[in-house]
Amino acid sequence: MRAVLIDLDGVLYVGDQLVPGAVAAVARLGELGVPYLFVTNTTSRPVSALAQKLAGFGLTVTAEKFWTPALAATQWLADQRITGPALLVPEPTREDLPPAVATGESPGAVVLGDLGERWDYATLNRAFRWLMADRSPPLLALGMTRYWRAPDGLRLDAGAFVRALEYASGRTAVVLGKPAAAFFSIALARLGTTAGNTIMIGDDIVGDVGGAQRAGLRGLLVRTGKFRAADLAGDVQPEAVLDSIAALPEWLESEAR
Amino acid sequence: MRAVLIDLDGVLYVGDQLVPGAVAAVARLGELGVPYLFVTNTTSRPVSALAQKLAGFGLTVTAEKFWTPALAATQWLADQRITGPALLVPEPTREDLPPAVATGESPGAVVLGDLGERWDYATLNRAFRWLMADRSPPLLALGMTRYWRAPDGLRLDAGAFVRALEYASGRTAVVLGKPAAAFFSIALARLGTTAGNTIMIGDDIVGDVGGAQRAGLRGLLVRTGKFRAADLAGDVQPEAVLDSIAALPEWLESEAR
Repeated sequence: MRAVLIDLDGVLYVGDQLVPGAVAAVARLGELGVPYLFVTNTTSRPVSALAQKLAGFGLTVTAEKFWTPALAATQWLADQRITGPALLVPEPTREDLPPAVATGESPGAVVLGDLGERWDYATLNRAFRWLMADRSPPLLALGMTRYWRAPDGLRLDAGAFVRALEYASGRTAVVLGKPAAAFFSIALARLGTTAGNTIMIGDDIVGDVGGAQRAGLRGLLVRTGKFRAADLAGDVQPEAVLDSIAALPEWLESEAR
Repeated sequence: MRAVLIDLDGVLYVGDQLVPGAVAAVARLGELGVPYLFVTNTTSRPVSALAQKLAGFGLTVTAEKFWTPALAATQWLADQRITGPALLVPEPTREDLPPAVATGESPGAVVLGDLGERWDYATLNRAFRWLMADRSPPLLALGMTRYWRAPDGLRLDAGAFVRALEYASGRTAVVLGKPAAAFFSIALARLGTTAGNTIMIGDDIVGDVGGAQRAGLRGLLVRTGKFRAADLAGDVQPEAVLDSIAALPEWLESEAR
């Protein structure tokens, strides 16, 4: 049986509403012995908060069932034997990252997340000088989101600031978030599976389905969350379109026959 | 006789030191009837301050002899009949730009210069929202410099912030500074000459000579300012290398024979 990567927001729940049948579907994956990970680009809350949210829906899962850009960065740094990164990330996200370098010392890497209103010239220039140092540390980006829609209007997300630092320093960031291939491949290693044996199920035709396909996985689209009929008219063709995650176990079983 | 574009810093003067023979060379251009413009990427001081600096060297020239990114932007906006731009530029630079849009109104264009420490999230997000509006105004960049060397270390320049806004908005900036072709072509129109008849003299093999050549001009390199012998080993081959601007009139006369 295949392994599955499951997008959270828009697939398991939409905002604060659980998708009907989602809890039973996840339980069924367990019964079928299908390894799975909840995969999200969220960098504003740590895994502990995600687990708490699922618990509120009656779904109790351990921290090992989650995959986030912060966890991917932590794994990437461990693989490279890098310690003491500079963490330009939201405060709660530090919980899922290695201990930050001491103030005034040279960081082993520069990790960028969505600092929001805390982005300013001094912070960006500090990161820039680290990147321009003789022994330049790697630049890690917890996603390349361009912007998000806040109640008062659009707001710049981390992607813009990553691009600013890439341009000024002439460096290229390692991007650890959907749809970057590195994000998927580290997730597969964590799950002990291969791209060809793994399915990504999501509501974002580009970030979830297209990203997974470029990384060699198969991509399923659900009609919940941000799904729109026009998604099916574009370049990316999902493996299948399910009404919701509730239909996933049956689809997997029919595939296995 | 050809027309000439003359870089300022590194060619006419180096920092606060006049290049020996520079004043006589410029006077000789006047006698020969060669049209010329002083071309600089400076956005931190207006033309009035540049004229004052030259006057301090004993070289009295009118404002019409200068060409800067701010003047190019002013010309570009006039050509497009655009008024009321948002000006994210150093305070003194406003002198060479059209009047800014009133606070709270939609700008006719967004003009970005080197705000330095005044770059912050609120400012960038305000510019971002303008660019994402239904009737999105053009984005003008007064150069794409990546960084500069301040006494206390490297500092991010405007290019990084232009890239951030380009990425987030999906828009491409009109760049008005060397080595952008648009910057040279508007300068030629101002001078009433053509690319094939015009020579750029500068100390920057990439920004001055390479940029001019890509815009169809010929490029002369001087051995003053930032010149290094290694400059001649790269991809860009200047038309000629002069010891300094002092040798320019003689070179022009020998060319004309």
